[in-house]
Amino acid sequence: MSKAIGNTCWAIAEGYIPAYGNGPEPQFTSHETACLLNTGEQDAHVEITIYFKDKEPVGPYRVTVSARRTLHLRFNDLTDPEPIPRDTDYASVFISDVPIVVQHTRLDSRQSENALLSTIAYSSSN
Amino acid sequence: MSKAIGNTCWAIAEGYIPAYGNGPEPQFTSHETACLLNTGEQDAHVEITIYFKDKEPVGPYRVTVSARRTLHLRFNDLTDPEPIPRDTDYASVFISDVPIVVQHTRLDSRQSENALLSTIAYSSSN
Amino acid sequence: MSKAIGNTCWAIAEGYIPAYGNGPEPQFTSHETACLLNTGEQDAHVEITIYFKDKEPVGPYRVTVSARRTLHLRFNDLTDPEPIPRDTDYASVFISDVPIVVQHTRLDSRQSENALLSTIAYSSSN
Amino acid sequence: MSKAIGNTCWAIAEGYIPAYGNGPEPQFTSHETACLLNTGEQDAHVEITIYFKDKEPVGPYRVTVSARRTLHLRFNDLTDPEPIPRDTDYASVFISDVPIVVQHTRLDSRQSENALLSTIAYSSSN
Repeated sequence: MSKAIGNTCWAIAEGYIPAYGNGPEPQFTSHETACLLNTGEQDAHVEITIYFKDKEPVGPYRVTVSARRTLHLRFNDLTDPEPIPRDTDYASVFISDVPIVVQHTRLDSRQSENALLSTIAYSSSN
Repeated sequence: MSKAIGNTCWAIAEGYIPAYGNGPEPQFTSHETACLLNTGEQDAHVEITIYFKDKEPVGPYRVTVSARRTLHLRFNDLTDPEPIPRDTDYASVFISDVPIVVQHTRLDSRQSENALLSTIAYSSSN
Repeated sequence: MSKAIGNTCWAIAEGYIPAYGNGPEPQFTSHETACLLNTGEQDAHVEITIYFKDKEPVGPYRVTVSARRTLHLRFNDLTDPEPIPRDTDYASVFISDVPIVVQHTRLDSRQSENALLSTIAYSSSN
Repeated sequence: MSKAIGNTCWAIAEGYIPAYGNGPEPQFTSHETACLLNTGEQDAHVEITIYFKDKEPVGPYRVTVSARRTLHLRFNDLTDPEPIPRDTDYASVFISDVPIVVQHTRLDSRQSENALLSTIAYSSSN
């Protein structure tokens, strides 16, 4: 499998990091994840832009997904240029220099039992 | 990122606002959300039509998503031309004058622990 | 909105009706739902085929989605030609004579707090 | 329904098998599933490759989905060439010799109430 599967532009319209959680950390820390998969033979250089309801977008955040690797990126961990605020609606766009696949997952542990959601992101060629 | 990503026609076949909820409001109010993302440089004027099982569609509901912004729209909050009934099956269609991305999320807090679902909506060019 | 949005062939590879549930019925009966949306001006005549792991497919089940209506179909309610067995893996294919949109949702109430999943189905033209 | 619906290349960027679970087994064993549907008249020979964060991909795992059948494959059950490690981020790619449909589901029973997620996988022609 050396072929690069996927697309170079991905969007996740839903985004929300709960302000708190329950359960053993880090597995049960409330988190919002973008799962990035690079099946190709070249590293993927990805630029992420974060959109908000009532202020200008922030970014780019830069991550690299090595060739033949997956990166399950917690939005909670993004800090440069600035952390993503908690308890705030946002959305995200991923632009990669090579094709990748992006899937969105949230674990919400604010109440004592965790809840999960996941969806493949929206993709297009950029 | 000034390019407008997405499509101008989106459909969510699932729709259901639970009649009640548990937990601190507004975060744990049972709600059904359409997350709209406008990455472009022009405001998106969106017309929403609500479909039912046994009566004519209602709409259009009108919302604007400003350029370079996201709007996480709770169906609970739509009131004009009329509120969406609770505990009733519905579906929704979004027609925008510029490309947007739409993702569907529900938080169901009828029982003491919340449940979540999410999916990218179905899109086509209109 | 008189345009028929969607596609004429849809597939849901996941299918499983839990054998039992908890909570007030019918809302909290464990159920598996296909949400069908017909935005067009003609009734949609839909034929559903159910696939299994180790026996021949069963069908067609026939449902009609009226023009400008949505039908949230519980697989639990299908009886003709035969009910879908509980606690059994299955998959489903929907063939419609006019374009529709199909979304898949499950409410699992086997444990005391319900869980939810949803995804847009896979579509193609048939 | 003898037509083969779907695509020959599918990717699931999210993958994670919880290390433990609660509730009656095997239904409530924490598990990660790929639901494969083969609507065609020829058996589907599928090669699965598993991608990781920090080591080379492993595979191919080989499964067959018979003609006109669905296979709900638990990643937990894959053993050849090697089991998939628990509590570890991974991703998966499916290459089939005939068109299939792939949907991704997780049941997480680490806490006392189970959580569910599901999404259609990303597809392309290979």
